[in-house]
Amino acid sequence: MKPNSAIAPKVYLVGAGPGAADLLTLRAARLLARADIVFHDALVHADVLAMAPQARLVLVGKRSGRLSTAQRFINRQLVDAAGRYRCVVRLKGGDPMLFGRAQEEIGALREAGIAVEIVPGISAGFGASAEVGQSLTRRGLSRSVIFLTPAVGTGEARHEWAQAARHADTVVLYMAGRQAQDIADGLIGAGLLPQRPAVLIENATLPGQRIIPTTLAGLPLAARQLADGPALILIGDVYAELIGLAAATTPRSAAA
Amino acid sequence: MKPNSAIAPKVYLVGAGPGAADLLTLRAARLLARADIVFHDALVHADVLAMAPQARLVLVGKRSGRLSTAQRFINRQLVDAAGRYRCVVRLKGGDPMLFGRAQEEIGALREAGIAVEIVPGISAGFGASAEVGQSLTRRGLSRSVIFLTPAVGTGEARHEWAQAARHADTVVLYMAGRQAQDIADGLIGAGLLPQRPAVLIENATLPGQRIIPTTLAGLPLAARQLADGPALILIGDVYAELIGLAAATTPRSAAA
Repeated sequence: MKPNSAIAPKVYLVGAGPGAADLLTLRAARLLARADIVFHDALVHADVLAMAPQARLVLVGKRSGRLSTAQRFINRQLVDAAGRYRCVVRLKGGDPMLFGRAQEEIGALREAGIAVEIVPGISAGFGASAEVGQSLTRRGLSRSVIFLTPAVGTGEARHEWAQAARHADTVVLYMAGRQAQDIADGLIGAGLLPQRPAVLIENATLPGQRIIPTTLAGLPLAARQLADGPALILIGDVYAELIGLAAATTPRSAAA
Repeated sequence: MKPNSAIAPKVYLVGAGPGAADLLTLRAARLLARADIVFHDALVHADVLAMAPQARLVLVGKRSGRLSTAQRFINRQLVDAAGRYRCVVRLKGGDPMLFGRAQEEIGALREAGIAVEIVPGISAGFGASAEVGQSLTRRGLSRSVIFLTPAVGTGEARHEWAQAARHADTVVLYMAGRQAQDIADGLIGAGLLPQRPAVLIENATLPGQRIIPTTLAGLPLAARQLADGPALILIGDVYAELIGLAAATTPRSAAA
């Protein structure tokens, strides 16, 4: 805890990657090695935290359903720390700019006159794709990939979510393990074929990793095999061969 | 060049990240340090290649419009190298599983009985987002992000491409710098508003980086400022404040 009087206050917003510690970037690893304090999410693995041996570690946030009051408290903690520590790191699972609520923290810091430097990380969808061994895009089969979180059971938002997923060639759903039934219902309701190939992946890149190839209609049953780890759902023709189909036999929807 | 008789042949398909060498993963850096041969794309920066001091460096592929015969030649080179070198790395810009034509190489290697291990990388869209300083997603504003390459002037594919982009909250277009006019025309034709916020970014994370905030309609003019580096286009409400607008004043389309 060193006073920070001579240098301009700054917070590093750093991606912790998909799970495995050696999937951090070199830049992230160097920052952690010299960090004085690290604010981290619950999902950041202990091996990653061990890369910041000098730092005070502060667990913030919740695994799901973080309240806005809690977010304001995190913002306040970051602003305070920037005035007191030389190297302040806010460590977020995956990439900080995708589903990380980064903008709220960036906004609060900038408003307080604190510089923010962002260090990207490998987002879970890329860690999962490397493990599954199927490219997200493929010539003649997929030229677009959508990353989204499902909005289930909320009227208009639900409709928009499913329409967005319907129009992309490959779909990557984050925070999706517990909503498999709603996701399958929503996408089939939006016109995707029930037999469209899908992959459920839990704890991607970590020792407890589980990869379950299935179909859109098979997702709810497959999801019962999951434990309590973070899970992604991948959907698209590029996964056809994982379930023994030729890609050409699986049109996206009845209309396609 | 060491004979590879005792161990099973394997090729590492490694993401080189968005540009800056310290945005490689630790795993990628360790592989490069012990690589005997590295097959790399033209876009991989010299500082990254310098991380493989022992390796024979082989430039493969073209910056755009790679022919399938060229791809078959690359596949053949990889298969041959796997039988002759201990540590063979295929290094691709960004993440190997997004717009990298990885599946053709993976398929050829597996067919030849060669194991493939994939090491993810920071895709350009994430490197660019960190530099632009705006999260791809934001509570209440964007819960979906689509990554795509434009298919311009090709009838049906053009239509599908624009429809996919129209339904996502945030759009990230790769290999887009030279097609700014077609992209703007295609998306406005698909119903996006001409004043929708957009950002053009060239050489993201590298010294020659250039960030140009504009609008969908302003993209063609903005693109004239680009040099010859790789460029991305980001489109969405999350970029409104970069051009002095409040996000709420920019509906996605006239229908929204």
